[in-house]
Amino acid sequence: MDRILEIASSDLVAVAQPGVVVSHLQRAVEKEGLFYPPDPASSEFASLGGTVAECAGGLRGLKYGVTRDYILGLEAVLADGNILRTGCRALKSVTGYDLTRLFVGSEGTLAVFTEITCKLLPLPSCILTLLASFPAIEGGLDAASVVVASRLLPRALEYMDERCIRCVDDYGDAHFPPEAKSCLLVELDGFDEESLVRDAKKVERICRDQGALTLERAVDTKARDGLWAARRAISPSLYRMSAKKVNEDICVPRSKMSKMIREIQQIEREMGLPIVNFGHAGDGNIHVNVMVDKEEEMPRARDAVKRIFQRAVALGGTLSGEHGIGLAKASFLSIEVGERELETMKNIKALFDPTGILNPGKIFV
Amino acid sequence: MDRILEIASSDLVAVAQPGVVVSHLQRAVEKEGLFYPPDPASSEFASLGGTVAECAGGLRGLKYGVTRDYILGLEAVLADGNILRTGCRALKSVTGYDLTRLFVGSEGTLAVFTEITCKLLPLPSCILTLLASFPAIEGGLDAASVVVASRLLPRALEYMDERCIRCVDDYGDAHFPPEAKSCLLVELDGFDEESLVRDAKKVERICRDQGALTLERAVDTKARDGLWAARRAISPSLYRMSAKKVNEDICVPRSKMSKMIREIQQIEREMGLPIVNFGHAGDGNIHVNVMVDKEEEMPRARDAVKRIFQRAVALGGTLSGEHGIGLAKASFLSIEVGERELETMKNIKALFDPTGILNPGKIFV
Repeated sequence: MDRILEIASSDLVAVAQPGVVVSHLQRAVEKEGLFYPPDPASSEFASLGGTVAECAGGLRGLKYGVTRDYILGLEAVLADGNILRTGCRALKSVTGYDLTRLFVGSEGTLAVFTEITCKLLPLPSCILTLLASFPAIEGGLDAASVVVASRLLPRALEYMDERCIRCVDDYGDAHFPPEAKSCLLVELDGFDEESLVRDAKKVERICRDQGALTLERAVDTKARDGLWAARRAISPSLYRMSAKKVNEDICVPRSKMSKMIREIQQIEREMGLPIVNFGHAGDGNIHVNVMVDKEEEMPRARDAVKRIFQRAVALGGTLSGEHGIGLAKASFLSIEVGERELETMKNIKALFDPTGILNPGKIFV
Repeated sequence: MDRILEIASSDLVAVAQPGVVVSHLQRAVEKEGLFYPPDPASSEFASLGGTVAECAGGLRGLKYGVTRDYILGLEAVLADGNILRTGCRALKSVTGYDLTRLFVGSEGTLAVFTEITCKLLPLPSCILTLLASFPAIEGGLDAASVVVASRLLPRALEYMDERCIRCVDDYGDAHFPPEAKSCLLVELDGFDEESLVRDAKKVERICRDQGALTLERAVDTKARDGLWAARRAISPSLYRMSAKKVNEDICVPRSKMSKMIREIQQIEREMGLPIVNFGHAGDGNIHVNVMVDKEEEMPRARDAVKRIFQRAVALGGTLSGEHGIGLAKASFLSIEVGERELETMKNIKALFDPTGILNPGKIFV
């Protein structure tokens, strides 16, 4: 179940088995000048099927959307052993209910995928990466807001707070001054070098206007990898701070990001546990890490997480932008999803899987 | 139910009641420098709720996708009178099943929408429109394929065949030479005038390489409206040819468009009824019009349509790219949707509407 079955360049379509690793699919289509945009941080080991079941997001969501936007059709085995084929190879189809999107993000609880038809795009020929650091915690977020308000659409707009910066300080080629309290990694892509450079200059001006301490620009792959090394190192490097982290991924309306970060700081003070924030600033998607050293701190960490979820939902946001519910968040689902909505979802689950054999315990308590 | 409730610029979100006319929403958000991309030809009179129920496509699908891609959340009344709220205001959310996308395109058979939360984009500041005519029926399609293969992404890429051209010949400012057998209307948009002009030159070169007879370029609104007048006039002007038309909208994988057009010509010869083709060449979405003068030709027209559907599905395509199934295509649904898939959809219908009071007769025979 780990074979790429077809790459149809002229249709901009790939067909693959669910066991294919996302980065393998990405590299295979890139050889044909094509692009599979969904890019979760786990792309080097995540299976395509898993990312479809999860509706994975990733680093390019601002410009390119999420996994849902790139799945044209599915072959899936139902709980009763029957095989279902949804969608088609055409780019648009509205024949009956959208079973494809009902399955995407259903976390393996409705069906088991056996074949996945993906939409591809032409591979952008130019990429340009910028890294800016700021003296205030809001600096990176404010710069991100102005970038979006200025009608620039980078493919990545990654925020890191002060604690992240300190953790990744000596990874890769990123240089952060000791007074840096936030940073923003911006990646632009396209097919026209000149207009990309013009956009990069606009982003740099915005960062300077927001008081940037440092500004670095990478054009070639090696320099880009150097700047990205810090971003990629966040997750493992956080273990330098504490033995454990409770890692959530709330998403709020874009304009509410700074407010949400301030609320998280307030919860941090109340609960007495360090909280590290980074994430996809363009999408309003914050990766919140409550750091825990001792087992007895876990109930407090869970309480912090609950308060964070409550605040995110109160701001018009969601418990999870891209990680899904799984086991860990099942007991929190009702903070966001109402009684009637939950009952509707459970009815759909019962329709597809009356005896509960598909991924039991996931999503619903 | 026809009020725009909120336009939140900094979140790139609008909230509206379902009775709002699509073009009213478009104009209201444009005043704020924002953009609601879904643009069905019916946008001057279609209600937002109707286009969500239908998952309407339109003229900007190639670059911007369809209605589904711009709906973040819904408030809907169920058959039992209960109110359901799906999705949220954040750009990404994966909490439980994707009820929003299950409702989008469900043609009013699962719930009645009462409030719609839309995702917006920044309004492109530059638009440039081109019209090319070709001496062969494939000319416009071949040029469209090369445009897409050249990594250009126009917001519209509209094809018209010879019969369309003859019908709209004296509408607007479009000038077609008598030997024109197909034409292509290309619209580029963006935020950078220079790179747009560069792209326009590339498109023009492609059209010339494909043997274009004429090439017109419009920069200002008046000139653009002149070129679009022909495209907009297609539907009404076809009645000059015949008293009735059976209007379908198959969609095939992009590379199969020329083949599909040839198959339609074969069916035209077999059935002895004129068939006029136009559509969204970038998406593989062909508007097929079987022209009928007398009532007794209707069974033959239906037979022609059935054969066209069968061929579209055999090429990996679909009965409908954007019009949906409704009453007219319900009896054809099984050409594309298998027995098991149809049963699954009917089970979902029964779950939401056990007594069948919501839009009875639609989608399912």
